[in-house]
Amino acid sequence: MKNETESIPVVRFTEEGESEFEDIVARELPLTIILNNQELVTLLCTPKDLDYLAIGFLFSEGLLRDKDEIKKILVDDEIGVVRVETKEDKALADELVFKRLITSGCGRGTSFYSAAGAQGQARVESLIQISRPEILSLVKDFQRRSQIYRTTGGVHSAALCDTKHILVFSEDIGRHNAIDKIFGECVLKDIATGERLVITSGRISSEMLLKVARSNIPIIISRSAPTDLGVKLANELGVTLLGFVRGSRINAYANNWRIVSAQPGL
Amino acid sequence: MKNETESIPVVRFTEEGESEFEDIVARELPLTIILNNQELVTLLCTPKDLDYLAIGFLFSEGLLRDKDEIKKILVDDEIGVVRVETKEDKALADELVFKRLITSGCGRGTSFYSAAGAQGQARVESLIQISRPEILSLVKDFQRRSQIYRTTGGVHSAALCDTKHILVFSEDIGRHNAIDKIFGECVLKDIATGERLVITSGRISSEMLLKVARSNIPIIISRSAPTDLGVKLANELGVTLLGFVRGSRINAYANNWRIVSAQPGL
Repeated sequence: MKNETESIPVVRFTEEGESEFEDIVARELPLTIILNNQELVTLLCTPKDLDYLAIGFLFSEGLLRDKDEIKKILVDDEIGVVRVETKEDKALADELVFKRLITSGCGRGTSFYSAAGAQGQARVESLIQISRPEILSLVKDFQRRSQIYRTTGGVHSAALCDTKHILVFSEDIGRHNAIDKIFGECVLKDIATGERLVITSGRISSEMLLKVARSNIPIIISRSAPTDLGVKLANELGVTLLGFVRGSRINAYANNWRIVSAQPGL
Repeated sequence: MKNETESIPVVRFTEEGESEFEDIVARELPLTIILNNQELVTLLCTPKDLDYLAIGFLFSEGLLRDKDEIKKILVDDEIGVVRVETKEDKALADELVFKRLITSGCGRGTSFYSAAGAQGQARVESLIQISRPEILSLVKDFQRRSQIYRTTGGVHSAALCDTKHILVFSEDIGRHNAIDKIFGECVLKDIATGERLVITSGRISSEMLLKVARSNIPIIISRSAPTDLGVKLANELGVTLLGFVRGSRINAYANNWRIVSAQPGL
């Protein structure tokens, strides 16, 4: 496996003058995903857990629905290719692929933003609750684990948790990739996502909401800000949206009934 | 014009209990770009300067080369559509559009990442130089102008500068969009980009480097981190890459000969 960071010579300019040193920067790999011999997409990503990323991407984009569909996954991390083969050699209609992917500019999966798309997505009905101390404890642990960020200042993190512990953790230079890696790992390791929480280091925009709602996740937490469309979708889809979780503060933007003051009995 | 921010009710949970207040969040608009009646892409963006964004995107993706090609730009900011018509009704071969855009996952324009793509890009040969105080002064001004971020904590900024002043400034929830808005404004207002600098609030990854090199910009500056591929391309393409510009510190990752200790005579 290639390293996730690289040491690079840097010249620092300060009031005292110039000095040379070695800085650690995040690595960036162009990864091409090939589904049944059909080149699908090239993602810029952190070269780690490429199988999770590819599978998570395929699920996020709706191109795979079930782990049993997967026949083979071949990862070449030298040239940056993941080949996924399905049991039924489903020829993806060019039109379908085209249609999906032309909408994947800066926010992947924007095909789902239409009113129709959001209406097609079922509400998350989970009755799970979580206390403020539990949230703060999870976010504290999340911060502690964000190693590449602490080294390079250049990556995003994501985690799947229950109310007590982080279950799956990932880092990537892309905030979408970090979330997709989580879901890919859950698929490949048969880890259930319902009744669980997602923490992300990144901004919560609409595509994040759709991603977690599609995995039936009732609570999304970020240290950053949400967008208006993220909040709107969180309300529509029954997802609890917590932002700016820093220090002892939590901002609840939607469905705050899932936060209980005392320790919940869950 | 729609507002770039929206006021949203929030419940804040702290040690002292719950309190309700109104928070300001960044707005997020799905914008569909239609070129000669062909739907091209849907971007999630800040609903401001949609014409700049559309034109900047078309130039960044190589679908437009010259302002004179543009016949008409129609912006509908209610439904989120920009229609661009060119003088010659160039029917974009479906294959071309497909090929380009399937590679546009989390880093748009990844089609250019191949060795061939980078080799095809000419080096930036500008001999411009800038002093440390000038850089710090520009970044300070840049910070001061980042209004939406200061309000919402949820957007990126970008600017085109000469060595003394910010010439064009933009904000967007997407760091690619912010840069594209800059280039779009430059195209539509005939503002030259060569011999000038770009400042971005975001991470400097490879696609940022290709974007600035294609506009013949010799210096890119960020308060954040670069990636290894960003640094590699900066070296190859002759672009000066400055990262972590904060307080009185500047890290030069590539082509630091463009920084002079004294005030330059330019």
